[in-house]
Amino acid sequence: MTSRAPTLESMVQLARDGLLEEFVERAHGLEPADLADVLASLDEAERIGVVQVLPPELSSQALIEMPVEAHAEDTLAALAPEQAAEIVEEMDDDDAADLLGELDPEDQERILSEVENRSDVDELLRYDEESAGGLMTTAVVAVEAAATASEALHSIRHQAEEVDFYQIYVVDDARHLVGVLPLKDLVVSSPRRPVRDFMEPADIVVPPDLDQEEVARLMARYNLPAVPVVDAQGRLLGQVTFDDVTDVVEAETTEDILQFGGTSADEVIAAGWRDAVRSRLPWLYINLVTAFVAGAVVYAYQGIVERVVMLAAWMPIIAGMGGNAGTQALAVTVRRLALGLIAPGQGVRIIGKEVLVGTINGLANGVVVAAAAMLLHQGPMMGLVVFLAMTGNLLVAGFAGAFIPLLLERFRVDPAIASSIFVTTFTDVCGFSLLLGLAGLLLL
Amino acid sequence: MTSRAPTLESMVQLARDGLLEEFVERAHGLEPADLADVLASLDEAERIGVVQVLPPELSSQALIEMPVEAHAEDTLAALAPEQAAEIVEEMDDDDAADLLGELDPEDQERILSEVENRSDVDELLRYDEESAGGLMTTAVVAVEAAATASEALHSIRHQAEEVDFYQIYVVDDARHLVGVLPLKDLVVSSPRRPVRDFMEPADIVVPPDLDQEEVARLMARYNLPAVPVVDAQGRLLGQVTFDDVTDVVEAETTEDILQFGGTSADEVIAAGWRDAVRSRLPWLYINLVTAFVAGAVVYAYQGIVERVVMLAAWMPIIAGMGGNAGTQALAVTVRRLALGLIAPGQGVRIIGKEVLVGTINGLANGVVVAAAAMLLHQGPMMGLVVFLAMTGNLLVAGFAGAFIPLLLERFRVDPAIASSIFVTTFTDVCGFSLLLGLAGLLLL
Repeated sequence: MTSRAPTLESMVQLARDGLLEEFVERAHGLEPADLADVLASLDEAERIGVVQVLPPELSSQALIEMPVEAHAEDTLAALAPEQAAEIVEEMDDDDAADLLGELDPEDQERILSEVENRSDVDELLRYDEESAGGLMTTAVVAVEAAATASEALHSIRHQAEEVDFYQIYVVDDARHLVGVLPLKDLVVSSPRRPVRDFMEPADIVVPPDLDQEEVARLMARYNLPAVPVVDAQGRLLGQVTFDDVTDVVEAETTEDILQFGGTSADEVIAAGWRDAVRSRLPWLYINLVTAFVAGAVVYAYQGIVERVVMLAAWMPIIAGMGGNAGTQALAVTVRRLALGLIAPGQGVRIIGKEVLVGTINGLANGVVVAAAAMLLHQGPMMGLVVFLAMTGNLLVAGFAGAFIPLLLERFRVDPAIASSIFVTTFTDVCGFSLLLGLAGLLLL
Repeated sequence: MTSRAPTLESMVQLARDGLLEEFVERAHGLEPADLADVLASLDEAERIGVVQVLPPELSSQALIEMPVEAHAEDTLAALAPEQAAEIVEEMDDDDAADLLGELDPEDQERILSEVENRSDVDELLRYDEESAGGLMTTAVVAVEAAATASEALHSIRHQAEEVDFYQIYVVDDARHLVGVLPLKDLVVSSPRRPVRDFMEPADIVVPPDLDQEEVARLMARYNLPAVPVVDAQGRLLGQVTFDDVTDVVEAETTEDILQFGGTSADEVIAAGWRDAVRSRLPWLYINLVTAFVAGAVVYAYQGIVERVVMLAAWMPIIAGMGGNAGTQALAVTVRRLALGLIAPGQGVRIIGKEVLVGTINGLANGVVVAAAAMLLHQGPMMGLVVFLAMTGNLLVAGFAGAFIPLLLERFRVDPAIASSIFVTTFTDVCGFSLLLGLAGLLLL
């Protein structure tokens, strides 16, 4: 496990030196995820060369496991269509659909027209990539309710050996889902017991258009290794398994962190500078508009800054602390919303808590800045101004940090998007207004 | 699925009205996670009353599924020790250890002394909560390598029926792990084949002290439903299953978002205001120190602000945009580090990319602010000053956003902690220095 790295490096070297025979031999001993890392480290031409000589059962699994930004689909499209089709045939239908879905329609069709049994992949390509339908595989193991445990085991042995299954689905003759059978229950059951006596009710099923994040949340909540996907008539379409969901959770976490950092959730984190600029510049322009609003507030109070120029040094302190406190409240509220921990009607209580926390932290920091103003011989009135501005701005920060994401959620906008821009604009504007406005009242 | 909410509300009402007989009857039809939500909605006294009358096999599962902040362990500790022990006996050993681990040693011992077979729980309590040992259950299903498939199935039927298993472990007579057997392979294999012929090598094993985040990453990478935990001699201690890991991923995501938001990773997101203040105030004080640094820079250039007071309005624009661009670079870099996507030696290339992206975005925003300065009749020299300050500050932001987390990682500090404080301090200081310094050179 820990000695993986040198092996991978030596594999990359073999490929670069053109020692493909030895490469293929050693590839048999690697986990798909590790072979995928080797392929991802090669350049496009080397990768195509290697995939041309790898047995399809190895290259198919490795291509699936390659990171998105290595664009395994381009490697596939660069092969002769017959060879690409051979590789696709070795994939589970959901993995094949995910990969082919990244190609433009012509390349997709060129490969699919050579695939022997394309109907499953075609069906999966119809669903949105980020839905239960886009995640599921149509490969399931199903038995009839009247079968005994031993008949069910027998039937399972004759169903596709390649299917990854953690539970078995019990269906009627029109393929309506009537129950679920954890594999372990089947194994430990007495052989002559009919399946319907020990199957579990199919309580938790998902429609194909359910968002993938919801699917992941359900599976985590109910500790399910797999969840059945059924159509509106209750017919079994396929299943989503836990390994698809761990990828979803990882991807959604990346999206949340990127959005929180103020860039596009779609930014591929290992992408080059061109893509990074394309993802980030639009958000920076939106930020620039809000920054002008903050600047305009200062501009409006210019006369006061002119008369008490020391206020310019206090500006970033009051505004910056408000931004930080607001971001704290925002992080907690966004995360509570993401985990579904906020029930309807709780909004006021949550905003109240954040305002209280902001006020207490504001008083605690206000005392410090007031003391600093006194120590710097700026006078008791300046101390009072910065004390009130700090307390007021952190109160506002608590309010904005809770209110803005709750408001966005109400209007069905993902609260992680752009919340931080609005919150910091709020605290900048309020911070400058409080500091300069109070100074105008108390110092002049 | 969607009609869950009204059921839960009516259950809460039953408990409040003291209709416990009906409550217990309907509790049998609920998923553990749903019953847990009902319990979490009750107050402490109501919850204890309900748990006293629930059958232990229901209350045990519901207590496990309760959110951390509902402190199920307190409910357990409030019961008579015999009754608490009955409930603990119904739990998997890892869940029991997690819950009892939250109690102080006296309460723990009071309950454990009544538990019939406490040795497994005692053993698990020894491991760090956030390690593989803390996550694992000692309940595994193991067979010997020489057994045939049918003997293995027979033996499994006679091992604990209560064990959750997705794969079977193959051991020698000293319980050294020699292989892994996916349950489905056993089920589809021909009955007379010896297990050693179709078991898989136990390539992926973890030691009990491995950090839980590493365990989660391994299981996701290799799509494993369970991973065996072995001691230094290769003896099988237990297993970690995928459902433990989904909880870990959720908890780690919460930590990452909170740290990014500048509060303590340990803040329990649904905690009351006292805990929130305790988590956040220390970080705000650290922020205050850095804010004073930024304020000091402005103070040093006070003479320039006095003579060109309009600069005060540009200050938040230049500094704020730098903060945003820096946070973008930071989010991407922190996430790449968290996913293990940055190989040693790649640091310079990554910083180079971020500096390039920052510079391009700086030029793009610099043009806009220069145009704004011209439109506001502030003169071409002011336009030049804000153009250069914006471009320079976004370049610096790209550098700081990549360099600071890479530096922290090098010194084995979690780069998510405090990175954002350092990055925004950097961009504030550079932004003010550039704007006011350039103004001093070009405008006076």
